[in-house]
Amino acid sequence: MNFVDIIEKKKNRLELSEEEINYWIEEYCKDNIPDYQVSALLMAITINGMSDLETFYLTKAMTNSGDTLDFEGIEGIKVDKHSTGGVGDKTSIALMPILATCGVKVAKMSGRGLGYCGGTVDKLESIPGMNVFLSKEDLTKQVNEIGIAMMGQTSNLCPADKKIYALRDVTSTVGSNPLIVSSIMSKKLACNDDVIVLDVKYGSGAFMPTVEDATKLAESMISIGKYFGKNICACISSMEEVLGRAVGNALEVKEAIDTLHGKGPEDFTELVLESGSLLLSQAGLYSKEEALKKMKENIDNGKAAELLKTMIRYQGGDERVVDDTSLLPEAEYITEIRAERDGYIVKMPASMIGLMSMELGAGRVNKDDIIDPSVGIVLNKKVGSYVKKGEVIAFIHHNRELSEAFMEKAHKMAKIQDEKVNPVELIEKIVY
Amino acid sequence: MNFVDIIEKKKNRLELSEEEINYWIEEYCKDNIPDYQVSALLMAITINGMSDLETFYLTKAMTNSGDTLDFEGIEGIKVDKHSTGGVGDKTSIALMPILATCGVKVAKMSGRGLGYCGGTVDKLESIPGMNVFLSKEDLTKQVNEIGIAMMGQTSNLCPADKKIYALRDVTSTVGSNPLIVSSIMSKKLACNDDVIVLDVKYGSGAFMPTVEDATKLAESMISIGKYFGKNICACISSMEEVLGRAVGNALEVKEAIDTLHGKGPEDFTELVLESGSLLLSQAGLYSKEEALKKMKENIDNGKAAELLKTMIRYQGGDERVVDDTSLLPEAEYITEIRAERDGYIVKMPASMIGLMSMELGAGRVNKDDIIDPSVGIVLNKKVGSYVKKGEVIAFIHHNRELSEAFMEKAHKMAKIQDEKVNPVELIEKIVY
Repeated sequence: MNFVDIIEKKKNRLELSEEEINYWIEEYCKDNIPDYQVSALLMAITINGMSDLETFYLTKAMTNSGDTLDFEGIEGIKVDKHSTGGVGDKTSIALMPILATCGVKVAKMSGRGLGYCGGTVDKLESIPGMNVFLSKEDLTKQVNEIGIAMMGQTSNLCPADKKIYALRDVTSTVGSNPLIVSSIMSKKLACNDDVIVLDVKYGSGAFMPTVEDATKLAESMISIGKYFGKNICACISSMEEVLGRAVGNALEVKEAIDTLHGKGPEDFTELVLESGSLLLSQAGLYSKEEALKKMKENIDNGKAAELLKTMIRYQGGDERVVDDTSLLPEAEYITEIRAERDGYIVKMPASMIGLMSMELGAGRVNKDDIIDPSVGIVLNKKVGSYVKKGEVIAFIHHNRELSEAFMEKAHKMAKIQDEKVNPVELIEKIVY
Repeated sequence: MNFVDIIEKKKNRLELSEEEINYWIEEYCKDNIPDYQVSALLMAITINGMSDLETFYLTKAMTNSGDTLDFEGIEGIKVDKHSTGGVGDKTSIALMPILATCGVKVAKMSGRGLGYCGGTVDKLESIPGMNVFLSKEDLTKQVNEIGIAMMGQTSNLCPADKKIYALRDVTSTVGSNPLIVSSIMSKKLACNDDVIVLDVKYGSGAFMPTVEDATKLAESMISIGKYFGKNICACISSMEEVLGRAVGNALEVKEAIDTLHGKGPEDFTELVLESGSLLLSQAGLYSKEEALKKMKENIDNGKAAELLKTMIRYQGGDERVVDDTSLLPEAEYITEIRAERDGYIVKMPASMIGLMSMELGAGRVNKDDIIDPSVGIVLNKKVGSYVKKGEVIAFIHHNRELSEAFMEKAHKMAKIQDEKVNPVELIEKIVY
């Protein structure tokens, strides 16, 4: 097989065969195909697209390029929730313990953050002592004993995706639906869960700008998941404004813990309950209403918070943070940002707040940057709130002095006007 | 400037600015942009195209990436003829000396062959002692003294084209009109000739399959040439069958010499006279009819052949080959291929004969292959000829034993049928 012929076919809008896609992924992983040929193919795919069948073959080849988890020895229904990424998205940390108290098994593998989207693994690591590197044996043992484990991706999970993603990033081929779908789904499928709920975000702080784009992406991912025989659906949710109120690693863990104690922000709590009850009903264990009831029950009776505590202890972390979040890393300074006029907050772009938080040290510009777990931004007001001049809009948690340029941005982060606006509708729809 | 933004623009079908194109070419030549980014851009250009203005900027940037010849000190009208390449195309070797006897100046830079298309420089080098590496000073002196010099491209002619061509070859981006146009025209324009006639070939042995494709390419090249203020036009000619009868380096030189003696094959002589008279009339020295008369005159009175002799002597070669072509390298064996039935020859695909000749050692598969100047194929019959069973169709000139597989191909190289067919029309049209 000749790789130039494969590029030629895609250039001419022809469908690639499974054999051709396998050849590409296998030989590229062995460094037998140079980057400059793969980038030409990636561009041809970005412009000319891929059929569902091609995307399925690509996803399969990427999944099989590395280790897969078979969860042999784990009893029960294994579930996963995947978010396409957003600002302040700490959903997994609150949701997964609740789910595990409702009779499903959670062996969750998460990624690190890059750019203004945080990563669950980075957030978990802000818990003192917390170990996110589990062996397959430890993972299986822990999930069998307590029903839940949360960890980072193994280094050999979908190596093809790692290589291709790095290339897409520098060749303007990131925004291609089949490439996004295969990248996300190959990692999900390598984990072999039974039920998957996707949270596909749209808006200022997400990769997809509109509901329509997010829906299209969700449909493609569901279609690929179904090729693999998965029970899969998606909720389309807004990332126009920050999810919840906290952005920054330890700050987000605190918010997730608050939510497990029943004291989380309204919008975030809604997303946790909605996506969780969707997942539990998909798993066939409850109706959606029963699931909702069960989840709330296990928050109210403390079981969910207790399970998070147990999980932290199992993974070497300081479980006391669940009862006393002041044990989490805290920034040295807190600077208040106040409203400059009376009115309704009409806009607080998630992307802008994500970038500001990254600037404080909470996120990575480059892959190898070291993050500061304690810093970030906590919003005191959300879109739709009425504020009086001088009221606090947000708290900046920081360790370094804030620059003038930063403060200028901070004072512009909320757009205030006289006319009343409605809060952003968080969950747009469910796609099956 | 960020190269990813440039890729992004072309991916989104936006027009690149002169500044962006210059940045690409300059930084790529300095190795500041990696191949894998350029190949993504090349694919985006191949699929989404380029405007005439973009192609002009690209051509200009590539021309300026290396040395240009200003021909300072060469008096008179400098002319060039460029063929897009074909099998048996020895036109320059016959045509340029004739032109130089008609009052124009010829300082011709040619390339080497790759694949089944031969290169003029390789052909010239089959003349014993012939030197195709001239310094700028020697070139100027020789052209001023005798009106003609033919040489290889200087190593620093359009280095951007060299880098980009090598990448196009392995990324399925060869067949893009703006990339073909800028590649050819950048080299032509670096030579600063006053009048240029392009010979754009179509058919089995050419890059462009149809007259329409060749016409479109010719129009683009003319349009770019005119942006640079050049006097330029093109003839569209067939490469369905071999041009003339000889394929292979020394064999083609012999045929060019025969043509200068007025004894060349009919089709080849026609192309030489037609493209030459077109060029001389474009130069404004003669009407087309007068030019044709003048050219024939200088063949008949021996001036053209004499000038080739002088040029060979100036460049260190054995000038006696012009009077005695048996002094050219000759292959050890000649094998005759005979007709297997009576009938009219309806097809002898140029590409097939080119590939067979390459297999004999006359051409390069890879850039660094060493070619055998003596081998090749001489056709005894052309498309439209009537043959009797057992008549010789072609002579194979070879030094190695011919394999069975080769002989099988050789016996299939001419398709013979009962119905009469017309010879292939060589020159389809002239495009201004």
